[in-house]
Amino acid sequence: MANLKQINIGLLGLGTVGGGVAKIMHEHAQKMSDTEGIQYRVSKIFVRDIEKSKAKHPGLPEDIQLTTDFNDVINDPHIDIVVEAMGGTSFAADCIESALRAGKHIVTANKDLVAIKRGQDLIQYAQHHQLDFSYEAAVAGGIPILNSLRTPLASDKLFSVSGIVNGTTNYILTKMVEQGRGFDEVLAEAQALGLAEADPSGDVDGLDAARKIVILTKMAFGVTVDLDTIPVKGIRHVTAQDIQVASSLGYVIKLIGRANFEDGTVYAEVAPTLVPKTHPLSTVRNEMNAVFTEGAATGEMMFYGPGAGELPTGAMVVSDIMAIGQHIHTETTGQPFANYSQEATWKRAEDIQSVGFFHFETEDKQGQFIKLVQIFDDAKVSLDKVFQEPTSDDTTAKIVVVTHEMSQAQLQQINRATQDNPELTLISYYSVLPEAK
Amino acid sequence: MANLKQINIGLLGLGTVGGGVAKIMHEHAQKMSDTEGIQYRVSKIFVRDIEKSKAKHPGLPEDIQLTTDFNDVINDPHIDIVVEAMGGTSFAADCIESALRAGKHIVTANKDLVAIKRGQDLIQYAQHHQLDFSYEAAVAGGIPILNSLRTPLASDKLFSVSGIVNGTTNYILTKMVEQGRGFDEVLAEAQALGLAEADPSGDVDGLDAARKIVILTKMAFGVTVDLDTIPVKGIRHVTAQDIQVASSLGYVIKLIGRANFEDGTVYAEVAPTLVPKTHPLSTVRNEMNAVFTEGAATGEMMFYGPGAGELPTGAMVVSDIMAIGQHIHTETTGQPFANYSQEATWKRAEDIQSVGFFHFETEDKQGQFIKLVQIFDDAKVSLDKVFQEPTSDDTTAKIVVVTHEMSQAQLQQINRATQDNPELTLISYYSVLPEAK
Repeated sequence: MANLKQINIGLLGLGTVGGGVAKIMHEHAQKMSDTEGIQYRVSKIFVRDIEKSKAKHPGLPEDIQLTTDFNDVINDPHIDIVVEAMGGTSFAADCIESALRAGKHIVTANKDLVAIKRGQDLIQYAQHHQLDFSYEAAVAGGIPILNSLRTPLASDKLFSVSGIVNGTTNYILTKMVEQGRGFDEVLAEAQALGLAEADPSGDVDGLDAARKIVILTKMAFGVTVDLDTIPVKGIRHVTAQDIQVASSLGYVIKLIGRANFEDGTVYAEVAPTLVPKTHPLSTVRNEMNAVFTEGAATGEMMFYGPGAGELPTGAMVVSDIMAIGQHIHTETTGQPFANYSQEATWKRAEDIQSVGFFHFETEDKQGQFIKLVQIFDDAKVSLDKVFQEPTSDDTTAKIVVVTHEMSQAQLQQINRATQDNPELTLISYYSVLPEAK
Repeated sequence: MANLKQINIGLLGLGTVGGGVAKIMHEHAQKMSDTEGIQYRVSKIFVRDIEKSKAKHPGLPEDIQLTTDFNDVINDPHIDIVVEAMGGTSFAADCIESALRAGKHIVTANKDLVAIKRGQDLIQYAQHHQLDFSYEAAVAGGIPILNSLRTPLASDKLFSVSGIVNGTTNYILTKMVEQGRGFDEVLAEAQALGLAEADPSGDVDGLDAARKIVILTKMAFGVTVDLDTIPVKGIRHVTAQDIQVASSLGYVIKLIGRANFEDGTVYAEVAPTLVPKTHPLSTVRNEMNAVFTEGAATGEMMFYGPGAGELPTGAMVVSDIMAIGQHIHTETTGQPFANYSQEATWKRAEDIQSVGFFHFETEDKQGQFIKLVQIFDDAKVSLDKVFQEPTSDDTTAKIVVVTHEMSQAQLQQINRATQDNPELTLISYYSVLPEAK
């Protein structure tokens, strides 16, 4: 062991991710050095409260120094790689910036930061200074999706990436679908189980998924999109009734983030979406995540696994550490983690295609049905399925329409025509994922 | 473009895989050089018949030289990487050996060769001479499973890998399950569609899957197992009746290759296996492949995609080429593709655990049922489900037994006791995959 190279790691934060990293680096140390011939060691950890951290992590090796001053970590000349495991944007970014200035390589799972300009600027800075900056765990926690996109799929031209990239909402929707329960009730349960935060809005309103889609869009197509330009719809308004009707038509409702690239144009969105029950994404249950890719050569692929959690996320952070260790060893640091770049313009509404699922309420009187069908005909949208749902009262009728492919421009026209008709209410709209092969 | 490094590729073979490689390297050349700053070019291809090859590949760039002498490729000093895309073992191995002696890096999709000692010896030779030898496409064609195991999952300790790694048998079983058709009929259809070979034994008898399990066992656990020691059962004896009974109990039948590692012991097998319908592997249909991993940190993951085909397999070969290009560029070639090694002994029959599904035929007379249950009791196997199937005649009865976990030693005891009882016939036995999380 004497001639093994040693790489020292400084950890910022010892919460879920940091705790997982410390545990894996301790318990898998032998395998890691057997694989690479490099010995990895966590030498210092920045924490808020040393006593609390020690109490919470009784198995932490004695030789790791805990400190409440992040400068102790960043300015330690023996530390090669700094792992930012605190989350949040402002303070985390400041720490990373200081660490980069001190010549440290960076690993983070911080999607909030990587998805915004401040994060991108830090990544640029790292690259200009021959430093590595890796963030595999920022998307779909335990799934090595970014590494798959950047290396083995670099040989392909991908045109679509879609995924279930938020475990909290997938847990909630799974329980709603499988147990026929309402959103509020399942959310409360998820909060009690620690699967949803006290303020769940970042998850249930779709922003967390949108950040991950920004990162996936960059890794899959080399295209940088602005988080603010992505249409984002969360799951608060998904009703048990929508779920039931969708199920009877062969769909499950999932919160899908997706991005498409075609001829120099890009589109990305996050929305509750109808997924055919034969599609591999339909079987992703509870808090699991999955990313589904489509490429010119590789066709359809899916990467499925845990989207969060101490050990899965920790394992992906450690895999970044091991890759950087190799680069340090072979003096090849500074290659960008997102290694492909191209320009693209945002797709026009006329070119964004999808099958649509509409759920209308109308007055139950003669002539309504034909008026509704006329709206679709006016927008030149052809229909796949139309049926009237049985309702308990005599005065209103509920009508479900599933279209063939239509553009977002046509969808907007239908929305306007519906709003212009006081006797017609659009209760809900979902786009429908195409069938898998 | 003038300062781009150029890497020249020599191709041996222009069949399905070779054709895919040539096509992708031509059509994705720009993306490949944008990503890595390296320009890749296929310069020579060894073929059996130049005119036939030209006729079959009209889009092949003019500047690629076709030759019927493989020495033209191997001894070309401008060629950096030789891609062996012929298949088979003996001649392919000879060509690879010559190429290695000439200092070429090797990429192959040849699982027949990599899974046997001759292949392993060539891999050793490459490593000793600082040459790369990569074979991502040898398992599950278009899915980057080996790269996922060797890099991002290197941080984890995996203990189980199981998968649907033969597209032909998965196609046949899918049609048998979904359409209630018999094996012979669907095999003939698969042959007509080009999904099964004229001599289908390598696929349907499980040998192809076994080769891939040898490679997965090495990549997942670092353990080399001998192809001949793996118990292999194919799908010829799977009946429509088995499928129907399994389905009524919530299972689909899949040809599963799997390997487990635990405390220095390893076990691997290939057999038609009952997969719970809630398990992600159950949704892998037709010729698609998937590999399911279980690890201490990452928990359950699945990698799903096309298992074969010109472009998917070609894309993975090209991803190996790009990785080697990077290594050449950074002067870091010669690192083993399978980068983890440890010793293990084969598991004892007492330690190989599985749930069992038994389908018996007995004479329909009083006392048979209790005799059968007694056999399980004698072997100390507890039962999960027992039921008698309705049959059309009065003289025989069919009984299905699903056990709780039992060892292979217990299974052998049950088999012996059944054989000792002339009134009892075991029509079929399957092990049952555990439920996923």
